Amino acid sequence: MAKEVTSRSENYAQWYNDLALKADLAEQSAVRGCMVIKPYGYAIWERMQGILDGMFKKTGVKNAYFPLFIPKSFFSREAEHVAGFAKECAVVTHHRLMNNPDGKGVVVDPSARLEEELIVRPTSETIIWNTYKNWITSWRDLPILCNQWCNVVRWEMRTRLFLRTAEFLWQEGHTAHATAEEAAAKAEQMVQVYADFARNVMALPVIIGHKSPGERFAGAIDTLTIEAMMQDGKALQAGTSHFLGQNFAKSFDVQFTGKDGKQDYVWATSWGVSTRLMGALIMAHGDDNGLVLPPRLAPVQVVMVPIYRGDDELQALRERMETMKTALEARGVRVEIDDRDTLRPGFKFAEWELKGVPVRLAMGPRDLASGTVEVARRDTLTKETLPLEGIEARISELLETIQQNIYDKALAFRDANIEKCDSWEAFQTRIQQGKFLLCHWDGTIETEQAIKEATKATIRCIPVDSCVCEEEGVDIYSGKPSHRRVVYAISY
Amino acid sequence: MAKEVTSRSENYAQWYNDLALKADLAEQSAVRGCMVIKPYGYAIWERMQGILDGMFKKTGVKNAYFPLFIPKSFFSREAEHVAGFAKECAVVTHHRLMNNPDGKGVVVDPSARLEEELIVRPTSETIIWNTYKNWITSWRDLPILCNQWCNVVRWEMRTRLFLRTAEFLWQEGHTAHATAEEAAAKAEQMVQVYADFARNVMALPVIIGHKSPGERFAGAIDTLTIEAMMQDGKALQAGTSHFLGQNFAKSFDVQFTGKDGKQDYVWATSWGVSTRLMGALIMAHGDDNGLVLPPRLAPVQVVMVPIYRGDDELQALRERMETMKTALEARGVRVEIDDRDTLRPGFKFAEWELKGVPVRLAMGPRDLASGTVEVARRDTLTKETLPLEGIEARISELLETIQQNIYDKALAFRDANIEKCDSWEAFQTRIQQGKFLLCHWDGTIETEQAIKEATKATIRCIPVDSCVCEEEGVDIYSGKPSHRRVVYAISY
Repeated sequence: MAKEVTSRSENYAQWYNDLALKADLAEQSAVRGCMVIKPYGYAIWERMQGILDGMFKKTGVKNAYFPLFIPKSFFSREAEHVAGFAKECAVVTHHRLMNNPDGKGVVVDPSARLEEELIVRPTSETIIWNTYKNWITSWRDLPILCNQWCNVVRWEMRTRLFLRTAEFLWQEGHTAHATAEEAAAKAEQMVQVYADFARNVMALPVIIGHKSPGERFAGAIDTLTIEAMMQDGKALQAGTSHFLGQNFAKSFDVQFTGKDGKQDYVWATSWGVSTRLMGALIMAHGDDNGLVLPPRLAPVQVVMVPIYRGDDELQALRERMETMKTALEARGVRVEIDDRDTLRPGFKFAEWELKGVPVRLAMGPRDLASGTVEVARRDTLTKETLPLEGIEARISELLETIQQNIYDKALAFRDANIEKCDSWEAFQTRIQQGKFLLCHWDGTIETEQAIKEATKATIRCIPVDSCVCEEEGVDIYSGKPSHRRVVYAISY
Repeated sequence: MAKEVTSRSENYAQWYNDLALKADLAEQSAVRGCMVIKPYGYAIWERMQGILDGMFKKTGVKNAYFPLFIPKSFFSREAEHVAGFAKECAVVTHHRLMNNPDGKGVVVDPSARLEEELIVRPTSETIIWNTYKNWITSWRDLPILCNQWCNVVRWEMRTRLFLRTAEFLWQEGHTAHATAEEAAAKAEQMVQVYADFARNVMALPVIIGHKSPGERFAGAIDTLTIEAMMQDGKALQAGTSHFLGQNFAKSFDVQFTGKDGKQDYVWATSWGVSTRLMGALIMAHGDDNGLVLPPRLAPVQVVMVPIYRGDDELQALRERMETMKTALEARGVRVEIDDRDTLRPGFKFAEWELKGVPVRLAMGPRDLASGTVEVARRDTLTKETLPLEGIEARISELLETIQQNIYDKALAFRDANIEKCDSWEAFQTRIQQGKFLLCHWDGTIETEQAIKEATKATIRCIPVDSCVCEEEGVDIYSGKPSHRRVVYAISY
């Protein structure tokens, strides 16, 4: 093996960390809680960004950029928002350093204190709605459909690469509408975009649903979510879309004149996904050999490794591989030839396996003579020898097959680990075994809280697809009447 | 006119600000010195990003992401760097807010003081070289060629949209090499990439050169720059590429084992361009009617405006325009049909002129009957009626013509405003008239400083192309011997 990875069964958390580090995705930095995203990890994130950005734009959304800093007073404006958000954050109090009067290094210049402290954005509703106020006077100015790709900071005490970091990268969409219906429809549309992306690009079978009131975004009327199951049976919230009602418009006094000439507050949504998706990608598909990347996200989809002795053999193989590479690239396939001379093929195989490259082609002089190539699939770890003739078309198809297979595998895993549960006793056992449990809920925050305290499990969502949950029953905990099942799980 | 713009002759600074605001590029935010980049402005920046990013990647550079925050002590490590940089910056001292004990709003929690203050990055050499230390042990780990697209903060007292803002967006490339020659070549390669981008994408005829020691980046051995002339004759530094020698490697103790088994410090470059390029774009090409966008950067290259009465006419025009749009898009042209029903055509014309869209097509029922269309060029403000037959090919060509014409016009302007100057008396007059002056310089920082104090002019660069400057002479100020001319100008 190139680098040793802890097995999932031995220590799942360590396995996750090993993959993030050893596959060169990210590492901790010198700043507590802030990660460095390494080139290979960033290349995957760039593919996510590019594909999502295109999907957003198809819905009419445009990108913009709003300030990193938010005046402290803005956080007091939306009452629920401040309660839910503004506490653990990075506070800028000064704007100058000076040479240490002692002569060593630099110190903060006490005379450069800011009149009002600035908060490094944990999310941008406040500064954006303060801006929208100047953009909106009439129904003609609506809707506004903006998104920004940026960094945000939430001062987390316990951090884990990608899953929970003080600084992370994300996109946050913020839309403004003339009617509640239009805003609610936009929030719904964007969670569908996220689900489409998760399923068809990330190969992640997510459940779409509403958050229970206790799990809603601070300041939202309704929060829609996509929830994914990781291989330890825990849930990962992979994206959220909020219908914010008129809360932020009221806090920042954003009114518009309607077609009927009447003044009303503007209706809002916000929605976001972050580098947390990288964590989901690792944990949903990885195995004990390393990452398993869905072809649509893999920066390198096909790696070619020549097996040779001496420069003549290498030269002949390289030529044939270059031809194949050009032909594959013409089909839109991302290819790399690994002709590093300092490493043995076995080492290279292990390294590319660790990095999750979907297809590996190995070729030696005998292959060249017989017109064949060894094709190895990362998802199944199987190999077969195929004729070079027509190989490009086969590989294009194979990448599609692998994309589908990774999804199918994750879906089968989820289906095997989601079950209806009607007994509180069984609930307590099964939830610890890493199951998603479909249970009746009486709709009260008290029950939700009691279950959370007893088991750490939370209502991940009130599903709107992926399962038939509309039925009469009694709450699993309180015994009170219930009209539908919800998804309980322990989450990241 | 859609929105009134101050003329350049009346007030150039106000004209600039009007264009930035009224063409919907950017605006000031609630946070002093931080701007909001509006969707239209951001769309131009996105095009810049996309094209530059592709150019970087062709040279082997990969993107990564490093933390927003830098521990204060890092700034003391590289002595020149701290002197040149670390003073005016945003300092994070606390990590929590709390409810005001008085009951109103939130205050900084005094118990949440950071042990060591964090600086919001003004540039990332320090944190990146602290990271590279862990990535580099042997010559096999070199070169490292990383770039990041991110936000940086420099606490500026006087800010202007795009040109000088407290927070701005940029890319910063940071490379690590085994030899001085390789690093110097990389710095040179990247300034050439910038010049290529400026000239062929932004239509900006830049001068490439070395910065004089007094104008170098803090911590650099050599700074290469591209300098552009704005329409007021002032210079704008549009991009820089630094050969950093071993300075940062020494400060952060980054050594590698060479092929010969010996230990040595790593050689470095860094290079960046920022949203300042947006300022250059406005000021180099704009006119009294608004922006003039080079087609390669224009988010909308062709706008179509139907001239109609009633829905029937609109419907017929829209159909024909949709056909044309599809055909143009197939050629890679970015097209918008402006069929807003609430605005008169004259208003639309002025608005698209203000936004700098290169080509406007206007079509009425008579055009439809006669198979013609009115084609207006933004760069020349000329119009002609052309047959619809074959219009798509003509427009593709026209966009190329416009791109070239905008460059030629800027080049002619620069050539008319750059001159050799050998008299200190003439220098003082001509420099105030907005000229670039090619003057002999004795190579001393004293002369450079004296001229700056007397006239505000600085040495923009010691050119390596764009003019023949190698010749013997005497310094324009000191009268001492000089071996070459340099470019003096007053700059942004």
